[in-house]
Amino acid sequence: MTALPVPPCVQWSDDGAAVRLLDQTLLPAEERWLRLDSAEAVAEAIVSLRVRGAPAIGIAGAFGLALGLQGSDAGGEEARLDVVDALRRRLLATRPTGRNLGWALDRVAAAALRANADGATAMATAARAEAEAVAAEEAAMCEAIGRIGRALIPEEGTTVLTHCNAGALATAGLGTALAPVYRAHAAGVPVRVAAGETRPVLQGARLTAWELARAGVPVTVVTDSAAAALMKEGEVGLVVVGADRIAANGDVANKIGTYGLAVLAAHHGIPFYVAAPRSTFDADLPDGSAIEIEVRDPREIRGGLGRQTAPDHVGVWNPAFDVTPHHLVTALITDGGVLREPYAASIAALLDPGPPTEAPT
Amino acid sequence: MTALPVPPCVQWSDDGAAVRLLDQTLLPAEERWLRLDSAEAVAEAIVSLRVRGAPAIGIAGAFGLALGLQGSDAGGEEARLDVVDALRRRLLATRPTGRNLGWALDRVAAAALRANADGATAMATAARAEAEAVAAEEAAMCEAIGRIGRALIPEEGTTVLTHCNAGALATAGLGTALAPVYRAHAAGVPVRVAAGETRPVLQGARLTAWELARAGVPVTVVTDSAAAALMKEGEVGLVVVGADRIAANGDVANKIGTYGLAVLAAHHGIPFYVAAPRSTFDADLPDGSAIEIEVRDPREIRGGLGRQTAPDHVGVWNPAFDVTPHHLVTALITDGGVLREPYAASIAALLDPGPPTEAPT
Repeated sequence: MTALPVPPCVQWSDDGAAVRLLDQTLLPAEERWLRLDSAEAVAEAIVSLRVRGAPAIGIAGAFGLALGLQGSDAGGEEARLDVVDALRRRLLATRPTGRNLGWALDRVAAAALRANADGATAMATAARAEAEAVAAEEAAMCEAIGRIGRALIPEEGTTVLTHCNAGALATAGLGTALAPVYRAHAAGVPVRVAAGETRPVLQGARLTAWELARAGVPVTVVTDSAAAALMKEGEVGLVVVGADRIAANGDVANKIGTYGLAVLAAHHGIPFYVAAPRSTFDADLPDGSAIEIEVRDPREIRGGLGRQTAPDHVGVWNPAFDVTPHHLVTALITDGGVLREPYAASIAALLDPGPPTEAPT
Repeated sequence: MTALPVPPCVQWSDDGAAVRLLDQTLLPAEERWLRLDSAEAVAEAIVSLRVRGAPAIGIAGAFGLALGLQGSDAGGEEARLDVVDALRRRLLATRPTGRNLGWALDRVAAAALRANADGATAMATAARAEAEAVAAEEAAMCEAIGRIGRALIPEEGTTVLTHCNAGALATAGLGTALAPVYRAHAAGVPVRVAAGETRPVLQGARLTAWELARAGVPVTVVTDSAAAALMKEGEVGLVVVGADRIAANGDVANKIGTYGLAVLAAHHGIPFYVAAPRSTFDADLPDGSAIEIEVRDPREIRGGLGRQTAPDHVGVWNPAFDVTPHHLVTALITDGGVLREPYAASIAALLDPGPPTEAPT
């Protein structure tokens, strides 16, 4: 296992009665761990971006659902079923775009319901065990992505351009996009990262730069709009980003700005990779057009940095994500291997590796 | 003349003893006019971006040089020549990339030196008259750009995407990129603007949105990295930006991010226009590779918005400008007409419209 640059950002508290969570809104100025005593507090932390990144949101949701059941005194199987359903819906409603949240909540809810007949305590215990399994599996998937993606980083070193934060702070492990970087760095490959700052919430400048610097990986922050000039100067060897949801045809929803980077990478002949665990894939969506794109509060743009940055009365468009069509994606780096076109076939094989089937065409 | 959305941002004080300047670093929260009593104070205002935008910087430099001569008590022709030279060099050193500053300073210095033999007072008077002529000509060029560029905006209306601020606040008049928008709006055309916020200094969010809103033009602020998604959604009819320096072959230096927008516009089949007066053209530069790109303080990215936005110890790359190759520019909107490829010929004709010559090939 490659050493984590930061402890898992979602944990149980020492007494097991609360969720312990690193408040990412305060980074890089302050490293503060929160104690969240209820599922509602976990939901608020997700909405407020105290925890973010599709895999980490999934883990937080899973822990939140288990925490809610642990604290529930509902008597009777039917009442408990209602509690599971209400918790699941409350947590799912926090952020619509990422796939991992629904995947993790479904798993924990199903595990809880399987134990429902055995009483409230058994149900809570089962939910908590499943939440921990989700976290462990996400961490293992990161480790696999790192091992598999590392082969795409040349031994002589290069500069990887990334966007937003798809690192340890976005997962329970090494990250997705950054996992190959950490693996290469640990092996002595001189890999450098250019981190797009990622307006409006600046996850690249605040989080990616912070965790890479902690791990000793050289990192340079650039404004999002400087990425094109950096590519033109020949300073970008490859682009690697994470994903919030990937449709069955390989279309990728990820942080706003990802689509533009994909177009720019294609223009400059630079490989554009998306790293994601299988929990990010949504086989039910034929393509990216059906992905719900969260539009966030205009205040993130008008004044989210401590001062007024746009007039109060002007319009603001603040989508949190965009969709990159699969034809701009050089490859998908997953825990099950590097997937290439035709994605419909390679994704289907990833998600259903069981009995051999005809590849869809 | 189309009404200005804001008074000229560089003026003489009422008593004529100082330069009056709108402090653009405080917008949109506060509209504060500064009284600058010396050429050095004007230089500081340019360095600090209290005034910015290539044409406005040129005007501020011209006023600063005239102000310096007005306050000088150097006796003797040779001493006065030294003063002119020192003031010109000090003001020119404030910002390296924009063309208009050198153009304006050369004009004012030449006018001053022509009057040198007539004494200090005559010299100061001549410099001031020339500085005012520079401002008046820049305003007239904006008006012409507005008239000429307006024809490129469809009568049924459209959304113009722009970057940074190439409006009234960047000039002494209607602006460059925004001049056609103001003209179309005044004529009742339903034109809307999408303003890229323009990190790190946010001239789009703070300044473009502010002046357009004052003029009643509908404006929506987007993060720089949302521009690609906006284009993909079909919400951008054309892109119009300003320029800081244009080489003889049509390569354009403008605010960092411009090059990326040009690539994205080409990818989406959207016209990409650059609006600039002839004072922005540098016939001495064969192409954009020779343009000096100002790299600004990393603190603009690490914490320029009132809080720490990147760790102190990580690298930052903060170029203020990039260069867009001429083949990505659909047309140049100038005060002398709309120029198209081959730019070497159309630019040469613009800058030397005198005796008919063979068009260079």
